Amino acid sequence: MPGLLLVVSAPSGAGKTSICRETLRAFPELRFSVSSTTRPPRPGEVDGKDYFFLSPEEFRERIGRGEFIEWVENYGQLYGTAKNTMDAFLAQGHDLILDIEPRGAKAIREVYPRAVFILILPPSLDELKSRLAKRGESAAVMERRLRTALDEIRAALWYDYVVFNDRLDEAVDRFRAVYLAEKCRRGRHDERIAAFLS
Amino acid sequence: MPGLLLVVSAPSGAGKTSICRETLRAFPELRFSVSSTTRPPRPGEVDGKDYFFLSPEEFRERIGRGEFIEWVENYGQLYGTAKNTMDAFLAQGHDLILDIEPRGAKAIREVYPRAVFILILPPSLDELKSRLAKRGESAAVMERRLRTALDEIRAALWYDYVVFNDRLDEAVDRFRAVYLAEKCRRGRHDERIAAFLS
Repeated sequence: MPGLLLVVSAPSGAGKTSICRETLRAFPELRFSVSSTTRPPRPGEVDGKDYFFLSPEEFRERIGRGEFIEWVENYGQLYGTAKNTMDAFLAQGHDLILDIEPRGAKAIREVYPRAVFILILPPSLDELKSRLAKRGESAAVMERRLRTALDEIRAALWYDYVVFNDRLDEAVDRFRAVYLAEKCRRGRHDERIAAFLS
Repeated sequence: MPGLLLVVSAPSGAGKTSICRETLRAFPELRFSVSSTTRPPRPGEVDGKDYFFLSPEEFRERIGRGEFIEWVENYGQLYGTAKNTMDAFLAQGHDLILDIEPRGAKAIREVYPRAVFILILPPSLDELKSRLAKRGESAAVMERRLRTALDEIRAALWYDYVVFNDRLDEAVDRFRAVYLAEKCRRGRHDERIAAFLS
C-alpha cells in the first residue's frame, strides 16, 4: 500500500506551519514533501530538506520535461512540485504532507485522486483580521493580505476537511485525527481484511 | 447542524464494548444510542439507558406503526432501533454511537446516508480464534461463533473505516480519531466558512 498524501492549505495567519510541525514530530513515518525552487537558500536552509534549490536554467529544463505536477512564479522566483520526488516517497510507504495553495492543490488532485485535502482556518474572520493586524504592516498591505486570504478560502471550498485553529493544541489534535482516520479507511485495509476470509 | 451518527459493528472478541466505553467517557457530547427490546432487564440494567424495555405487545404495535428502522428477533426476543429516539438526539446536536450488526447497519444507511460506518476487528484471524478459544466453550460452539464472526465481517465490507484492535489504547485512539476527523468534514462547516466570505 503506497503512502498517504495529505495536501494542506491555509491563508496566512492560520497557524499551518505550527500544526504541521507538531504533527510531523509525533509521526516518524510522516514526512514533509520537499518542493523545488529557484529562490536562493536562506541562512540555515538545507538543500533536499527545506527545498530542492535549482538554478533557473535547470528549473526551466525540468518544466520542459514535464517533471512538475504544478509550478508557479512568485516575485520572480519559481516554485514547483516534482512528481518523481513525491512518487519515490509514497512508493516507499511514507506518508507525505504537501503544503500548497489551493490552485496548486487542484493540479495535485488530478494526479493523486486519493490524496486528502485539508484546509486550516483561523476561528473567524475577525480573528483572521486581528492576526493580520498584529504584523504591524500598512493598512494597504493588510488589506491585500486579507483579500488574498479570502481568495484562497474561496478556492478551497472543495477540500475534504477543515481544521479550525482556535487553540493550537486542539487544532493539532484535529489535524492528527484526520491523518489517523484516513489511515483507517477501509479501502487501505482490503488485504488485511481478505486475510480473515481466506 | 444535526449530530453525527457513528454506526459500529464488530465480531465478538474484537473489543468493541471497551473501545466505545473509553470513547464515550472522553466526549460528553457523544451518547450511546439506546435500542428497544422485549428481553427482560438484567440486574443493574436501567430502562432508557441500557435499553428501552418493552412488552412484546408494545414492541409489535410499534413495528406495526413503522417506528423501527430495523428490528430483529434473537433467541425469541425482539430488538429494534426506533427512528424517533435517534432523531430526537441528533436534532439536539448530540452525536450518537449505534452498536448494530452489519445487516441492521445497512437499513440504517438507507435512512441516514450521512452516518459513518466503523468496523472494529481483532488484529488477525489467529488472534480472533485465540480470543474465542479463551472463553472455554465447546469446539462446536467455538466453531459456530467463528463462522458468525466471519459472516459479519463479510457483510461489512462496505464500511467506511476499519479499526484494528491490536492494543486497546491504540484502538481507542484510532476510533476517537475517526470521530474527530468526521467532525472536521468540510460539509459540516459550510456555514462557518460562509461567514468568512460574507
